[in-house]
Amino acid sequence: MSSTWGNNIKLSLFGESHGGAIGINIDGLPSGISLNLEEIKIEMKRRAPGQDKTATSRKEKDEFEILSGYFNDKTTGTPLSIMIRNTNTQSKDYDKTKDFARPGHADFTGRKRYLGNNDYRGGGHFSGRLTAPIVFAGAIAKQILSSEGVIVGSHIKSIGEIEDNSFDPTKVSPRLLEFLKVKKLPTIDDNKSVEMEKTILRAKEEGDSVGGVIELAVINPMAGLGSPFFDSVESHLSHMIFSIPGVKGIEFGKGFDITKMRGSKANDEMYMEGEEVKTYTNNNGGILGGISSGMPIIFRVALKPTASIAKSQRTIDMFKNKDAKIEIVGRHDPCIVVRAVPVLEAATAIVILDLLMEMKKYDGFKRA
Amino acid sequence: MSSTWGNNIKLSLFGESHGGAIGINIDGLPSGISLNLEEIKIEMKRRAPGQDKTATSRKEKDEFEILSGYFNDKTTGTPLSIMIRNTNTQSKDYDKTKDFARPGHADFTGRKRYLGNNDYRGGGHFSGRLTAPIVFAGAIAKQILSSEGVIVGSHIKSIGEIEDNSFDPTKVSPRLLEFLKVKKLPTIDDNKSVEMEKTILRAKEEGDSVGGVIELAVINPMAGLGSPFFDSVESHLSHMIFSIPGVKGIEFGKGFDITKMRGSKANDEMYMEGEEVKTYTNNNGGILGGISSGMPIIFRVALKPTASIAKSQRTIDMFKNKDAKIEIVGRHDPCIVVRAVPVLEAATAIVILDLLMEMKKYDGFKRA
Amino acid sequence: MSSTWGNNIKLSLFGESHGGAIGINIDGLPSGISLNLEEIKIEMKRRAPGQDKTATSRKEKDEFEILSGYFNDKTTGTPLSIMIRNTNTQSKDYDKTKDFARPGHADFTGRKRYLGNNDYRGGGHFSGRLTAPIVFAGAIAKQILSSEGVIVGSHIKSIGEIEDNSFDPTKVSPRLLEFLKVKKLPTIDDNKSVEMEKTILRAKEEGDSVGGVIELAVINPMAGLGSPFFDSVESHLSHMIFSIPGVKGIEFGKGFDITKMRGSKANDEMYMEGEEVKTYTNNNGGILGGISSGMPIIFRVALKPTASIAKSQRTIDMFKNKDAKIEIVGRHDPCIVVRAVPVLEAATAIVILDLLMEMKKYDGFKRA
Amino acid sequence: MSSTWGNNIKLSLFGESHGGAIGINIDGLPSGISLNLEEIKIEMKRRAPGQDKTATSRKEKDEFEILSGYFNDKTTGTPLSIMIRNTNTQSKDYDKTKDFARPGHADFTGRKRYLGNNDYRGGGHFSGRLTAPIVFAGAIAKQILSSEGVIVGSHIKSIGEIEDNSFDPTKVSPRLLEFLKVKKLPTIDDNKSVEMEKTILRAKEEGDSVGGVIELAVINPMAGLGSPFFDSVESHLSHMIFSIPGVKGIEFGKGFDITKMRGSKANDEMYMEGEEVKTYTNNNGGILGGISSGMPIIFRVALKPTASIAKSQRTIDMFKNKDAKIEIVGRHDPCIVVRAVPVLEAATAIVILDLLMEMKKYDGFKRA
Repeated sequence: MSSTWGNNIKLSLFGESHGGAIGINIDGLPSGISLNLEEIKIEMKRRAPGQDKTATSRKEKDEFEILSGYFNDKTTGTPLSIMIRNTNTQSKDYDKTKDFARPGHADFTGRKRYLGNNDYRGGGHFSGRLTAPIVFAGAIAKQILSSEGVIVGSHIKSIGEIEDNSFDPTKVSPRLLEFLKVKKLPTIDDNKSVEMEKTILRAKEEGDSVGGVIELAVINPMAGLGSPFFDSVESHLSHMIFSIPGVKGIEFGKGFDITKMRGSKANDEMYMEGEEVKTYTNNNGGILGGISSGMPIIFRVALKPTASIAKSQRTIDMFKNKDAKIEIVGRHDPCIVVRAVPVLEAATAIVILDLLMEMKKYDGFKRA
Repeated sequence: MSSTWGNNIKLSLFGESHGGAIGINIDGLPSGISLNLEEIKIEMKRRAPGQDKTATSRKEKDEFEILSGYFNDKTTGTPLSIMIRNTNTQSKDYDKTKDFARPGHADFTGRKRYLGNNDYRGGGHFSGRLTAPIVFAGAIAKQILSSEGVIVGSHIKSIGEIEDNSFDPTKVSPRLLEFLKVKKLPTIDDNKSVEMEKTILRAKEEGDSVGGVIELAVINPMAGLGSPFFDSVESHLSHMIFSIPGVKGIEFGKGFDITKMRGSKANDEMYMEGEEVKTYTNNNGGILGGISSGMPIIFRVALKPTASIAKSQRTIDMFKNKDAKIEIVGRHDPCIVVRAVPVLEAATAIVILDLLMEMKKYDGFKRA
Repeated sequence: MSSTWGNNIKLSLFGESHGGAIGINIDGLPSGISLNLEEIKIEMKRRAPGQDKTATSRKEKDEFEILSGYFNDKTTGTPLSIMIRNTNTQSKDYDKTKDFARPGHADFTGRKRYLGNNDYRGGGHFSGRLTAPIVFAGAIAKQILSSEGVIVGSHIKSIGEIEDNSFDPTKVSPRLLEFLKVKKLPTIDDNKSVEMEKTILRAKEEGDSVGGVIELAVINPMAGLGSPFFDSVESHLSHMIFSIPGVKGIEFGKGFDITKMRGSKANDEMYMEGEEVKTYTNNNGGILGGISSGMPIIFRVALKPTASIAKSQRTIDMFKNKDAKIEIVGRHDPCIVVRAVPVLEAATAIVILDLLMEMKKYDGFKRA
Repeated sequence: MSSTWGNNIKLSLFGESHGGAIGINIDGLPSGISLNLEEIKIEMKRRAPGQDKTATSRKEKDEFEILSGYFNDKTTGTPLSIMIRNTNTQSKDYDKTKDFARPGHADFTGRKRYLGNNDYRGGGHFSGRLTAPIVFAGAIAKQILSSEGVIVGSHIKSIGEIEDNSFDPTKVSPRLLEFLKVKKLPTIDDNKSVEMEKTILRAKEEGDSVGGVIELAVINPMAGLGSPFFDSVESHLSHMIFSIPGVKGIEFGKGFDITKMRGSKANDEMYMEGEEVKTYTNNNGGILGGISSGMPIIFRVALKPTASIAKSQRTIDMFKNKDAKIEIVGRHDPCIVVRAVPVLEAATAIVILDLLMEMKKYDGFKRA
């Protein structure tokens, strides 16, 4: 299994970067949900390429066609399937270099995994392009969560050495997330956005690329999501997040920094705020024992610099099994972080919805 | 689902810290595997409590009884099940404070998840004690992997502010892993081990606790493990690793630091070493596009300081819904990092075995 | 995977007929359910061997020990695990004949599946003894279903050529199911019970065995259980039912006989009875399009004659790969149908509970 | 979950009878398999409607478009996805009667399951039309199995009261299966085919429908497929087979008739034929203890008469909750058995391939 995911919502993803189409089959949605299709298109557009000089010049409108599961403007409850045609492919770019493994890419490992039969053009099924259907599924999940009062948002915490402020982990405002959503390069501190853009363009000019960190927040989550032992919120989220190409690290709450704190500082002391249970700090990122506490779920995701760069690199010829050099032609993002923002939000929303449905299973049984 | 895991090897975990027994049912092992039971006991002992002043004084021999699946000194291929009796429980410690949510623990979230019905004594099913059966399963996985030439090992990268050296990611020697395995507090630089011990004991004296980072290595892995899109090696490993209590972060290869590198530095350039494909660097931690490359798989795991501390903390009374103070009595590790070492190795070995079995599914089909 | 089952309730079964213990880990139960342990013991006793001359003389009390998941007389919501020690084993019976494949048994196929490493004594993990933990799990499921108003029951439809009456598929009375439950050989027509007993004893005297059919009913099921396409009620039930050793056929409603009816007869015409939707007939066994209609779910299960018989049979020596003869010594049921009654009821209850939890996932979402 | 299936090969099905398209995503195929597309089209055509007066007059070419997973004339190993456009829909037929539950159909139960939001036109996702993508997936499975030497075939055992001969369960010839495959109404005895056609046409003329039984054979299966306890060959096959609309029963080997045999007759005595293990009879249908023995796997499937009939029927108005009458307009098969033949073969092939991949997981481990 590779492209099938989920316990309650089941995703089945298909497609290659330069094949006929990409798409997703979403199985297990609640029926009777009206979708805001315009809102979905906005999410798709946040991810779409070719919008800006910080991004690849490959232009794809990413227009989705709903093939099933939506009837009379509502989800039917049976599989909701979409297809997105690949239109702006330049497969010839890949013919020249297909014998050479692009460093940092899945060319060599994909070849090993599939015994040389995978579609190598544009990375095939490994391509970041496959995140477009994920954004579609996530846009639906966001809408359902939103009507349950749960909101998912994020900002770019860093690009290269440029660091934005952090979310206040004990209270992330819905309004802040709204502001961030419409920004092209979403930072809390707009000055940092300007600097980040410069950093990206400088790398681009030099035929190079940069990485960064995205910080995500799930606000107003219900307490009690997740299950010990193997289905902690962190387990579920990280499984999905590490599916996204380019992710190399994830940390919840204080993350790696919590290892330098004493327990007396790291523990989030608790108090009652009216009827609600709160913590003075949120070093655990809203998750204790793998279960959501009701505080904001906060985590950060590390994305590596784009592997496709113009500079000459040492590699191997996979057919002749000998050393070689490669200069990658083609249209690439000098920094995938910006376009990864809506993808990681989508991935997060899908996981939280899956966990919410898991929680509902246990509801309403008569207990003597 | 909560305590069931796996695609190919299926784990089903049971037990509470102060209940009758804990154990695991391992379904899907290859048949006909002779196990070195002494070696398994050594792994269990690495994790067992009460061995040292840096650890809890709860003494548990963690003697396992094999209930099924092992016959004539070989795995039968049907479920291999073990049980470990809980013997040295002091449940009364928990009666006094059961109304109060221990900060940093799952008391409050577990109560939400299970509507107040979970066994609160010693953390119940959330307890770190549940990692004992994981170590058992991992010890089996290690033995099977070892006969396939794959070795899993680790060292403590840091405790609090004290940092050990790192693995050389391009070549981790099996001999080094052997050395580390027999150390009580496994560091590459023994001086750091001494300092770490001091750090732990100092925290203990002050009624406090410390956290740390463990660095793991899988050496000599077969290239081609893992699958896009949702079953990357990172996805699988992180899902399992975040099941272990106290884990707050994971990063592969350079991890968060890769976000500060340019692509031209971050990409691991490739070359042929005889028949073998190698990379000059290993910033990607042996995983490209979610698939193992054959280079060592390297990752680091952040563990928070033990949540149970003697110091007085602000919390809530979960029954009266009002603010309260708690001083935790009981026997606790001032630092869980040391005992987490064999647990994380075990978890890693189980995942790699599961991925190896996944790979084998596709073998041997006739291809025209 | 072999001994792991379930989408919502997860079962993990372990043990061999002559090993240390058998048992089951039940993951995903709702928390806070008080169990009637006496009622569970009654169900276990219905299945237990050695109670009667129509059954094997192997005496096993089948006393279960709850290892986890039950605290303060309620389910905790974390895995509920039990163990049953094997006590009355006579493994030597199997030593003499272990080289010979018993016809009708899994000796040869099990050997193929596990490359000769499975525990052959008493059938090992293939043994009907493994149904004891299923009965335990089913007894819990029955209690939970019962508090939701759903009742599972059955009768023996036939033993050899002796046929009992059938359930009236449009209305099965709860009272009838109660009567059946306490009968040693549960038939609707008690005369048939007498004849069936004779048939069994006659086969026994002749060193032979007989089979039969069990008819099951789920009464008062909620409409809407099951999902197209692959998770029809029939799919779920049949998957579980065919796990029970000796089952060779299953049919729902009119089953095979419906193939001889015209559509105009086979279709169950509908009407309103007050607020409730009913059908005049119930040829479809309460399931339409794979989904429960609210009418009783009715199905029949074919059980083959016990494979273990005293008569001499032609077989092979699996070690020498040559023809051989076998006379099976040991204690066996001349007819497994009687003891299969509580097993099939248990299996049915587990499936219905799993489907009910599936249904609950979709509840309560806000629909605009 | 509803439309997602499989342990090793994962199917994800989508579409409604009158929606934009139907299709399937097949995840987990071995890479590098060349497909005979012409052969797939032949299988699709065997199922396609509108070919004959015994079938519905709805004409659908069922032309599939491969969207992904096939590159350079070979499977890539990543998801193979197809789409089939719905072209010849006459949705207006359903508008008139959409308030009325068609007896024998999923109209009422689907409404309950999806709270009234499912696409009712032509049965929506419940439609037999969804079996077209199953046939596609099965045609691939057949080709892969065929290169492993395993062949799946079938014949119509009965239509109404007309009975064909049975397969000789101890030896089904590949040649016989080839003959059957090209017959329009595949029977062993061609006279029966003529009579069956008459029976179907008579029912059609009378505005009625008939059902029947299909007997399937898997010849030359490897011994050792399947796993106790819950993944018996029968469990896997029945789960999939009962997903096919209209199936009401399944029996393996002698099936229900075995319940009337003594054990001494029912047991299949064994002998060596050269190196091979054979049984004199095959009453168990090639499966013992849930595991394939290497003898032909034989089973029969009961299909009910088409629920859509022209005759007036009593039903309910689902909106007004009152009694009503319905006369079903539209184009329907008077007998689904004929078109179900390739569907059941396809379903069988998929399951056997999934089991074969399961078997391969355990191969090649070093055993000391």
